[in-house]
Order: sequence, then structure tokens, then C-alpha cells
Amino acid sequence: QAQPVSSYAWNQELTKLCQQRHFIMEDDSGYGPLGTELKNNLAELWWRSVVSLREQVFGISTLHQQRPTAAATSTPIGLIDKNALHTILHDSQLNKKEMAKSIESLLHNQIGLRTSLLQGALEHYVPSLALLNRKLPFGLAEMGTCYRPIHAEEPNGKVKTGESFMASLVWFSSPQTSAQWLEYWLRHRMLWWRKFAVSPSDFSSSELQNADGNREVRIQYNFSGGTETLETLCSLGDEVLVSRCVGSKAKLQCREGRKSVIPHVLSISSCLDTGVRTYLHNSFQEMGSVHTKRRLLQRKVLKLHPSLTPVKVALDMGRGPSNELRQVCEGLLQELQEQAISVWPGYLETASISMEQQLIRYDEMGVLFTILVNDVTLENGIAQLRNRDTSIREMMHISEISSFLTKYITAARRM
Amino acid sequence: QAQPVSSYAWNQELTKLCQQRHFIMEDDSGYGPLGTELKNNLAELWWRSVVSLREQVFGISTLHQQRPTAAATSTPIGLIDKNALHTILHDSQLNKKEMAKSIESLLHNQIGLRTSLLQGALEHYVPSLALLNRKLPFGLAEMGTCYRPIHAEEPNGKVKTGESFMASLVWFSSPQTSAQWLEYWLRHRMLWWRKFAVSPSDFSSSELQNADGNREVRIQYNFSGGTETLETLCSLGDEVLVSRCVGSKAKLQCREGRKSVIPHVLSISSCLDTGVRTYLHNSFQEMGSVHTKRRLLQRKVLKLHPSLTPVKVALDMGRGPSNELRQVCEGLLQELQEQAISVWPGYLETASISMEQQLIRYDEMGVLFTILVNDVTLENGIAQLRNRDTSIREMMHISEISSFLTKYITAARRM
Repeated sequence: QAQPVSSYAWNQELTKLCQQRHFIMEDDSGYGPLGTELKNNLAELWWRSVVSLREQVFGISTLHQQRPTAAATSTPIGLIDKNALHTILHDSQLNKKEMAKSIESLLHNQIGLRTSLLQGALEHYVPSLALLNRKLPFGLAEMGTCYRPIHAEEPNGKVKTGESFMASLVWFSSPQTSAQWLEYWLRHRMLWWRKFAVSPSDFSSSELQNADGNREVRIQYNFSGGTETLETLCSLGDEVLVSRCVGSKAKLQCREGRKSVIPHVLSISSCLDTGVRTYLHNSFQEMGSVHTKRRLLQRKVLKLHPSLTPVKVALDMGRGPSNELRQVCEGLLQELQEQAISVWPGYLETASISMEQQLIRYDEMGVLFTILVNDVTLENGIAQLRNRDTSIREMMHISEISSFLTKYITAARRM
Repeated sequence: QAQPVSSYAWNQELTKLCQQRHFIMEDDSGYGPLGTELKNNLAELWWRSVVSLREQVFGISTLHQQRPTAAATSTPIGLIDKNALHTILHDSQLNKKEMAKSIESLLHNQIGLRTSLLQGALEHYVPSLALLNRKLPFGLAEMGTCYRPIHAEEPNGKVKTGESFMASLVWFSSPQTSAQWLEYWLRHRMLWWRKFAVSPSDFSSSELQNADGNREVRIQYNFSGGTETLETLCSLGDEVLVSRCVGSKAKLQCREGRKSVIPHVLSISSCLDTGVRTYLHNSFQEMGSVHTKRRLLQRKVLKLHPSLTPVKVALDMGRGPSNELRQVCEGLLQELQEQAISVWPGYLETASISMEQQLIRYDEMGVLFTILVNDVTLENGIAQLRNRDTSIREMMHISEISSFLTKYITAARRM
């Protein structure tokens, strides 16, 4: 069996593979089909771990557009009606001062695009209190796109887009317990990131004190080229609530046991785009070469976690009467899809490439299992099931495959 | 049992209920916890029906920011660096012409926010061909926020945000089959919308020929106040592909059987925000009054489809030793959550309201079942299970509840 070869300078190799296998678009403008599925799986796992499995966390959904409050820093990116702007710029009747004034009023009361999900959660704080009977601790969670300033074109002609897909939990607890909650969430979140990794030791955390004297802890991933922040946990005190409160502060109060308190705020913010790149990097392995009949092929594998990997099963047919085999494949495909197992219908492909080449391609796509149906299957119902991580091929009756895969994937999620 | 009373003028009633029960925020700025869950459920059902269960549809994920192509109409909303704009507007050295020029160059090569998901899919067209071996038909699907122009403040002080959460399928087929595919998808999509409705007859379709002579069909919902478009199916020919193609058109070609063709494009675009409001409206029923010990209460029910409704089960405790009952509830909660059934932990609530009032509240939240655990449960394991739609209370052993609910919800999804 092939062994890992090198772990140096594979960023370029990895980028090429991710583009070729439809994870990432060549010009970096979003995700291809496999990347989209990977991102969706990661988002779903995050939501399940932070929201669905907890009674005290509520999901919310706020606008991308934001009005700055007295407390919040103004958003750096403004939205502007381009047609209206052009009309002003080409209005010969206006003098310079009038033009400047018209343009400023066009900036729509300073509405801009959100740079984080924190402000949205703080706006939902008071309305949420009725729902949970003012009982601490609780959290408000949201996932969505945030925007950083757009920089001018870089020398290579690329534009930095400044978009990132974020997941945020804003946690409200009594002042006495806020430090403990920071520790709790840091431990919990670190375990979560590591759970889906092939080499968990590439994840680390580092603490700093930010400008406002608040504690801030970062969960980081060590890419070959350097370290990047995946997630920030920031203790914010009660300032962010108090400073945006108009009128009596009584409406901010919650109950912790018998006491009434204004809670402290902990902001936990993850960048799921960085998460996707992290797991692609972490799961990428270059194995030794594979001899096929025709030539020597380099084997590269994306050993993505079973819960993350976009395609769980590829379904291919070998030798035998193609109409009958296709029917077997279609039946199996439907059975697997009903179990919410994503299937790659390799049997539909008409290009004639060898099964060895097909497997090399599936390994690069991170496909967990490959099912091969052939004339033996028609005789006795036995198909071949090949495991991505072990390269071992087992024989299994096709009536057992669906429940085997469901159990395998469920077990991996629980581990 | 209570009967429906009136179906007139309940928009105001419904709005009030949706705000009070945390579906929609009071200032219309997004969704509360229940609305977020409802929107997520709707999005998941759309994705499953259009992408996961089809071999020929691939999910993609494109940027919110868009550069207009030669073919595409320029996006009406521009993004602007507000700090840089202010610097220009307050630069006394510039004359009017220079100021106008600086501002125009600040508009970053016309980058703006997307108004639909169509352009993104067209950009993914050529890169996707390698994935599916140029075989027709196929589709590219995406969900995400789109932006329409922001209008100035309305008289009532509200700002129209122009954000909507869209789901899009762009379908590529041979020119010969494109008209049939429009019929196929119209039928399929109409069935899908109606599947989750209490009164399916409120959905209708209307056809028109748009400005370019293309066929356009709209799926509409009849709100009490008027009809709104939920989804648009638009036949676009091959123009949208050809006009944006630079260089040889050979790279656009696909195979249908043995022929090489440039496919025709069908764009199917749904507004899921309108979808959420549609199902809230469609499921809302005012029933007769309910007598409780203290007073007469009006019963309002959101009869949301089991697959859509944000909370499937509420878990409450009745008479009995509260520590023991709480333990029973916690065990059941965990069991249900592992089955991915969303639970409302009513037993955690300390406010003392009667079970009648609690049930009225749950009906307004669209909670499908209410489980009541009490001292009888401690004796023989039997709990009470109350159905939202029938108001019938059955007795069931707690060990059977989880599998009963799973079957109930799965069966409803398949219907």
C-alpha cells in the first residue's frame, strides 16, 4: 500500500487539485459543486453543534445592510444607487458644493454592509428576552456573509472581494460566570474543529488582550505557509449592551437564579471559508505512485472526514450487460439518496477511462466509498465496496450497502 | 372541537402573531428564532428537492459582488468605500470636474451587488462542463441573498431594504427539448409549493411573454390582500450564453445523444422570503374560543406542514416531583435531538401559566406535538401526547415517542 511522500510545498499542488476537482473556482470567485457541498456540510455541522443540540441557543437571521448605531462603528462599505450617482455627476447645473451635498445625501443615512454578525445579535437581544423568560445564560446564533472593505485591484489584476461566510454565536451570561464560559466555549470549539481533522495538532489557540482591555482568544490553523485565524472568542463585558440602550436599562436585565443582572457578552465568530480551506489542506495527502497498465500515476487523496466530504459514495459499473447493470445502479442510487447519502453517479459516464484512473479521480474528490457493480452482482447480488482511506476492497451484498454506509457515517459523526 | 371562524382581514392578526411568536422582527429587519428555523427548513426542502435528489443538478456558490459583463445589465447598486468618498468630497484642492472623475474611479470598475443568481450560474457554465462530460441536460443551483435598489425612506420612516433570500436553478437543455423542460419544471415546482400548503388552491400560475419575446411563467400565491409572485420560470434561449462568450463558441457546446449543440437556458428563480410569508399566511387559522378556568381565550393555530414547522415537539411537565420529572424530560429531549427532531424545552420554564395557556401559545408557534410528562409517567412510563391539528391527546409509552415522531415526520415529508 502506498505511503505518504512529502508534505512540503504542496499548497500549489493542492490549489491545482481543488480547482480541477471543482472545489474552488479558478479565479477564486466562489465554490464549484464539490466545494459548495463541503461548505454546506461544514455549516450544517456548526449549526447542529451550536444551535440544534442546545436548548439555550436560538438561531436568528438579520439583514446584510446595517445602520450604524451610536455605539457601533460605522460600516466602511456604503451602498449607492449608481444611476442616481451618475445623474448627479453629470448635472451641469450643480456647483462643486451642491454636488458634494447631493452625493452625501445619496449615501442613504449611512446604510452599509455588515462587517460582522455581532451587531445583528445585539439588536435581537431585547426582543429575545420574552422568548426565554429572561433566564441566563443563553445565546443567539447566525450564519451569513459579511463584508470587509474592498481594496483596489491588485497588481495581478485580481480584486479582493472582502466577502466571507461567517458563523457567529453571541453568548449572554451573568458577569460572575463570563470568564468560565469563555473557557468552556474555547474548549468546546477547539474540540469541534479538531474532531473533523486528520492531524488535529495543526490547530492551536493564542490569547491576547485587545485595545479595550478585553480578553480575546483566537483558534488558529497552521497552513504550510503560515498561521491563519479560524475563529475569535472575545469577551466584551456589558458595555456593548449598555452603550446601545436608549432609555431605562431595566429592559436589559436578566435573571440568574434570584438575581437581576445585565449580562456580559461573549462573541464567538468563525470564518467558515477559512474552515473549508483548512480541512482541504488538512486532509490532503500525496501518496506514492500507482502502477496502472499504461503508466505510472501519482496518487493524491483528500481524506476529508466522513461528515464533511461532499460525495460519500461513487457508483460505477464494470463488466457485464450495461442495461441490466444500469438498472441495478439506479435502484441503489435511489435507496442511498433516500438515506440522504450523496452519490456520484459514475455509471452514467460514457467516457471510457479505466477503473484505476477513475479511482485516482475519486480519491482526489475525497469520495469515501466506491461501489463497483458488475456481472457477478447480477448473478449473486454481491458488489465491490472500496474504501478511500484503506484502499481495501470488500465484497458486500447490495441489499446491505445502504445500512452499512448509514451506520459508518453516523458512527464517524459521533466519534 | 373548535371550528374555523373567519378568514377575512387576518393579515393584521397574522402579523401581530408572527411578531409575538418570534417569527418576524417587529421592524421587519429579519427573522426571529422561529422564523429563522422555518426559513432554514424551507431552504433545506428546496435544496433536497432540486439538488440532492437529482444526479444532473449541481450546487454552486458565487460571490454577492458582481462585475457586469458585456452582456449582463449593470448592477444598479454600487459598493463604495465611504471613508475614501468622504476624503474626496472634502478635498478643497479639487475642482468640480476632478471631483466627479475621482468619484467615478472610486466605483471600483462598476462592482455592485447581484440582483439575481442567474449571472453567477452562467459564469459557472463553462467550468462545469468538464464535471459532467458535456452531457445535457443539467442544472446549476444556488441559494443566497440578492439585492434590489434601495429606495429612500418611505413616509412612515421605514427603509425598503431590497434584500431577498433567493433560490435559483439554471437549467441547460438541448434547443429541441427546452419547451418540454419548461413544462416539466413548472409542473414539478407547482406540486412542490402545494405539497406543504394547507389550502393548495391559493397557488396559481400565469404566463406572459416578456420584452425579449421569451416565455415567462410565474407561480403566484393569493394573499388576502392580493397576489404575489413566489417563483419565476423564464425561457432564455441560447442568447445569454452566446452573448457573454469571448472567442470560439466551441467551448459552449454540449452533447445531446450524438449531436453537439449550444444549450438553451431556463432560469427558475424562487423568493424564499415570500415563501416563508406564504406558508405562514396559508397555515394560519383562527379557531373558536377556548374556555379555560379563568377566562375565554381565542385559539389561533399555525398549521405549518410537519416538514416546515420550526418546533416539532414541546416537552412539558405536569404534576409530580419536579426533580424526577425533569430527569425524564432531559432524557427524552436528548433522544429526540439525536433524531434531529427540534424540541421546545417547556419544562425549563419557571413562569407559572396553566397548561391550557401553554397549549394556546404552542398552537400559535405551530408546535406539532406537545408531550406532557407527570407523576403517572414516573409510575408506568406513560406520557400524554397532544396533536396540534386534531387537539386529540393520546397516551403513549415514553420509549415509543421518539420512533413514533420520526415516522410521523418522515411520512408527512413523503406524502
